[in-house]
Amino acid sequence: MRAVALVAPGRVEIVDDWPEPEPGPGDVVVQIRGVGLCGSDLSVFDGSRPVPGLPWVFGHEGGGDIVAVGTAVDDREIGQRVVIEPNFADGTCAACLSGHTSACADRQVLAITRTGILAERVAVPADYTWPVSRDWPDAALACFEPLVVAHTAVRRANVPVGADCLVIGAGSQGQLVCQSLLAAGAQPYVMEPHPGRLELALKLGARPAGDHDGDTYPLVFETAGVPAVWEPAYNAVARTGKLVVIGFNDKPAQFTTMDLVQRQVTIVGQLIYDHPVDFQATLTAVTAGQLAPQQTVQATFPVSETVAALAAVREIPGKSWIEFSSWRDRP
Amino acid sequence: MRAVALVAPGRVEIVDDWPEPEPGPGDVVVQIRGVGLCGSDLSVFDGSRPVPGLPWVFGHEGGGDIVAVGTAVDDREIGQRVVIEPNFADGTCAACLSGHTSACADRQVLAITRTGILAERVAVPADYTWPVSRDWPDAALACFEPLVVAHTAVRRANVPVGADCLVIGAGSQGQLVCQSLLAAGAQPYVMEPHPGRLELALKLGARPAGDHDGDTYPLVFETAGVPAVWEPAYNAVARTGKLVVIGFNDKPAQFTTMDLVQRQVTIVGQLIYDHPVDFQATLTAVTAGQLAPQQTVQATFPVSETVAALAAVREIPGKSWIEFSSWRDRP
Amino acid sequence: MRAVALVAPGRVEIVDDWPEPEPGPGDVVVQIRGVGLCGSDLSVFDGSRPVPGLPWVFGHEGGGDIVAVGTAVDDREIGQRVVIEPNFADGTCAACLSGHTSACADRQVLAITRTGILAERVAVPADYTWPVSRDWPDAALACFEPLVVAHTAVRRANVPVGADCLVIGAGSQGQLVCQSLLAAGAQPYVMEPHPGRLELALKLGARPAGDHDGDTYPLVFETAGVPAVWEPAYNAVARTGKLVVIGFNDKPAQFTTMDLVQRQVTIVGQLIYDHPVDFQATLTAVTAGQLAPQQTVQATFPVSETVAALAAVREIPGKSWIEFSSWRDRP
Amino acid sequence: MRAVALVAPGRVEIVDDWPEPEPGPGDVVVQIRGVGLCGSDLSVFDGSRPVPGLPWVFGHEGGGDIVAVGTAVDDREIGQRVVIEPNFADGTCAACLSGHTSACADRQVLAITRTGILAERVAVPADYTWPVSRDWPDAALACFEPLVVAHTAVRRANVPVGADCLVIGAGSQGQLVCQSLLAAGAQPYVMEPHPGRLELALKLGARPAGDHDGDTYPLVFETAGVPAVWEPAYNAVARTGKLVVIGFNDKPAQFTTMDLVQRQVTIVGQLIYDHPVDFQATLTAVTAGQLAPQQTVQATFPVSETVAALAAVREIPGKSWIEFSSWRDRP
Repeated sequence: MRAVALVAPGRVEIVDDWPEPEPGPGDVVVQIRGVGLCGSDLSVFDGSRPVPGLPWVFGHEGGGDIVAVGTAVDDREIGQRVVIEPNFADGTCAACLSGHTSACADRQVLAITRTGILAERVAVPADYTWPVSRDWPDAALACFEPLVVAHTAVRRANVPVGADCLVIGAGSQGQLVCQSLLAAGAQPYVMEPHPGRLELALKLGARPAGDHDGDTYPLVFETAGVPAVWEPAYNAVARTGKLVVIGFNDKPAQFTTMDLVQRQVTIVGQLIYDHPVDFQATLTAVTAGQLAPQQTVQATFPVSETVAALAAVREIPGKSWIEFSSWRDRP
Repeated sequence: MRAVALVAPGRVEIVDDWPEPEPGPGDVVVQIRGVGLCGSDLSVFDGSRPVPGLPWVFGHEGGGDIVAVGTAVDDREIGQRVVIEPNFADGTCAACLSGHTSACADRQVLAITRTGILAERVAVPADYTWPVSRDWPDAALACFEPLVVAHTAVRRANVPVGADCLVIGAGSQGQLVCQSLLAAGAQPYVMEPHPGRLELALKLGARPAGDHDGDTYPLVFETAGVPAVWEPAYNAVARTGKLVVIGFNDKPAQFTTMDLVQRQVTIVGQLIYDHPVDFQATLTAVTAGQLAPQQTVQATFPVSETVAALAAVREIPGKSWIEFSSWRDRP
Repeated sequence: MRAVALVAPGRVEIVDDWPEPEPGPGDVVVQIRGVGLCGSDLSVFDGSRPVPGLPWVFGHEGGGDIVAVGTAVDDREIGQRVVIEPNFADGTCAACLSGHTSACADRQVLAITRTGILAERVAVPADYTWPVSRDWPDAALACFEPLVVAHTAVRRANVPVGADCLVIGAGSQGQLVCQSLLAAGAQPYVMEPHPGRLELALKLGARPAGDHDGDTYPLVFETAGVPAVWEPAYNAVARTGKLVVIGFNDKPAQFTTMDLVQRQVTIVGQLIYDHPVDFQATLTAVTAGQLAPQQTVQATFPVSETVAALAAVREIPGKSWIEFSSWRDRP
Repeated sequence: MRAVALVAPGRVEIVDDWPEPEPGPGDVVVQIRGVGLCGSDLSVFDGSRPVPGLPWVFGHEGGGDIVAVGTAVDDREIGQRVVIEPNFADGTCAACLSGHTSACADRQVLAITRTGILAERVAVPADYTWPVSRDWPDAALACFEPLVVAHTAVRRANVPVGADCLVIGAGSQGQLVCQSLLAAGAQPYVMEPHPGRLELALKLGARPAGDHDGDTYPLVFETAGVPAVWEPAYNAVARTGKLVVIGFNDKPAQFTTMDLVQRQVTIVGQLIYDHPVDFQATLTAVTAGQLAPQQTVQATFPVSETVAALAAVREIPGKSWIEFSSWRDRP
């Protein structure tokens, strides 16, 4: 089958002979319809994040239609449209047993430890596919996983109705956080230097940070992940407030414990979601019309232009995603 | 000064010689602008709820302008517009110390244990007056207190974004619950026989219970308080769901512990709010534009027509309230 | 193999030709060492709770040693000592996805929907067996499952350190609740007419309800399940307090919504535990030495005397359990 | 009256002519029985923490007997033994209204913004005195306030029964945290270089960190406040775990957001307690026999030897406190 193969750092090729996925007894095979791209895809693409070997297929945000079902699967069927939850927990370690599958010591990750989804088809555990309505646009399939990340961050932060929240960064993650905050009745204020991104956030209902009455907030969501924003992010937290760190980097971040204690600040590192409760909760909110993953999507590329899509990740105001209709329609 | 005096069960008179309030050192005097009426006012009016003696002034939902300030008050000033929190906790009993002022053993209540607010002016502890913008319509002053009851019920229930909630009864309390649920990103479904009330709820964004997919809900809010709804309310709770009881009556409600345990139902009796956190939280949501107390108000009566207003409580679809402009404008 | 077969309501026989369990790919076979008996076993025994057909093997509280491992199991091994979690969730329904496996619509239950464990060996899903130290006495294996029920009830109730709690009934479930409360730093007060049971509870560290200063409690745990205790249980709840209902019956329980609301009471139906977090949390507490399942066990019967053990369930002060050494030691 | 007056940085004198306190209408006057000393007292003593002027009376942990009652106080009486809550919130700012009095913008603090309690008598707001049994030893009065700090830290951290917790530092705050953890059914492991302090912690029931199975913990409490422990404290947090920072300093503490996010660490700055819920909750636990403030106290000094007591704060393994019997008994 066809796949987008990373053949060397920074170089992908569309290949025709990628091996067809073999579903295990508990797997389903999904024919891909849409794949979103994010920063971690870029770090695989440019070689900064190691993968088991080359050529490699990456891409981990997306979904499509079930075209085959493993022998032990009795709750999924051919033809269902699904989004894929791309982190597979072992379900048996102490972290999993206490409900924190995101901290699973043996977590398998699509595109990092297992072949990703920039391919015609992929085999994934049935439990990690989530049936959705066939009315979903493909863009929503491509953007649902990062929405789960955002919605999980917001849910765990227990944001009160009417609370003013600072969102640092209005890349796609920042925009999804804004969307989730708005759905929960909170008011996001956005700090973002890129005018196009800021504008997109304002369109969703966010306000510019400059309009805020006061320069601290009970809740701050840091999504930019660049070293320069650590200090403004930390300082913007009001007394007894919370800083939710979503974007990250490997440079030292500093503060003093005196300040942390005196201001009673809480800092939370927010990685991903726990299985299955967070995909479930986000799906509930989408189904109810409170969230719309595709609202944030801005640039659509056919699969043949994956390289251009990758280049766009850092340039365009919103999300780049790849749609697979050309591969589906051509035999 | 003028006041609406209950002179006998079911009979009120407007009197001119009600004693002017004397503020204590920690009190302020509020010139009333608007007063809402609710079922508990009716039960005082018709004599079914005992009061210290007749003549009596009732009314407990409302606000106005501060016209005098006690000697020990340094954080309120003449001219401020305020809403009144009408339950005064002693602040020293075990309930108050653990944060549950609503369970204060020695709680003073406007219109029940102390003179109410259907008068030109009333003295209340400064801590129990909440400054608001002068842009608030008087109807919002009249309807804020019941909104706090509703918003407290919703906040404590930890409603997830996107959750389907059943609201039983679409009187003013039911409508305020709907408003609060919508602000929190949940979807209220309403069960209400009165077509006008139902229509008002639907206008806010609720849906008719008949449109719900399935007859159980993770969260049920009972606001009607009539015996006939206990059974449908209880039965509508989904497994592991919660029934929040706001309306009440003194007839036996029945269930079996077998069913309660097998379905893992939680039943919560929701009385009022705790001081000061709940007025504060609701005010935050109103200030942020997420809630608008006056949305529910439907019938305005001048103070001279208080009797008609009382009659309307059980008849009109929304809230009856009394506006005081005639008393303010006439010397 | 041998098993204790229910051949008619109220009549069990030890049979030699019960079919050997066939483990599925994800199952393990456990050689049973100890089985506890509880009220629900009695209701199967006396025919009041229906089972798929007769003869039938019941018993659902217990554990033993793994003697065979299914082909797809890679995290359990022969020789491990395990306790069995006897409620198997489907993992795919909405209840399971939101973390409430106890409300699984398709829950399989040992002894009720699947063959129970009063047999030499039983096949169960590997995920529902919990490895424990070989130092555990067999009595602990027999009593762990009901301890999880108790510990889950206490954990969910968020009991503050130092809180006075009323425990109604000091049968084995009441005693396990006392144990769990003491481990959490709370003080159980026990209401129990049977002097021997009361004495056992006092030995654990509980106090008699008569010694309590005041007749209400912030937390009440009802474990007796008889109609006569509903009223004292409900009335003993302090304002803003919580009644956790563990024992149950099918007779009407009554209250008025007026009282529920005025006192702000919460009533919670507590069925069982959720998979896997509750077994995990209880095991952590046992491993840390905070809980000891066998503390409550009082009457040991060899498997040959299962009928006597069943008779004892309602008579003896503590827990009846069956030990299997005679079956293990005889070839 | 007599008082211990700080007359210059590092120099205290006992003076005979300190002005007698004048209680306001809402105050009581407390005849002091015992005062604990802590690091913040030292920083006032040595001049590193500024105070309004010299001479100055410091000391903020303690209690005694009520000897006078303000005109507006009706719930305290002469002769009651009380502990003093030394942080007085304004009750009207946004922080106070949302329940976080510890973040009150206008907080008054005994010994920092108002005269402290190293004096024969002191006037404090009646609401900030907590009646206790006359059976309490004076050492318990002296050590209760820091116990509230510790117990608040532990309560807010939601420590599960049986959880292994690392406590860094076994000075008096570390020991109080250990005590509170043990009361909640958790197991403290202590990291402390001072052998005497470590020994005291082990006597309470803590274990040495070296005995822990694994070098990470779901909960870490940092009480030492020296720069050198930041790194081991942060690194000891297990995935999804929490670091509660109680001790502090003004040197930069570092981490990377990459690590914080990948390990999903939460860092919480824990300052003090909120009024009134935390004193109330700690008092409940002490009254129930779950906590005993005096367990940690180790060195008693008569008030005449306050200088020696101050010198001892950094030297002795436990808590230094000052008892006032010589001043009470002498006319």
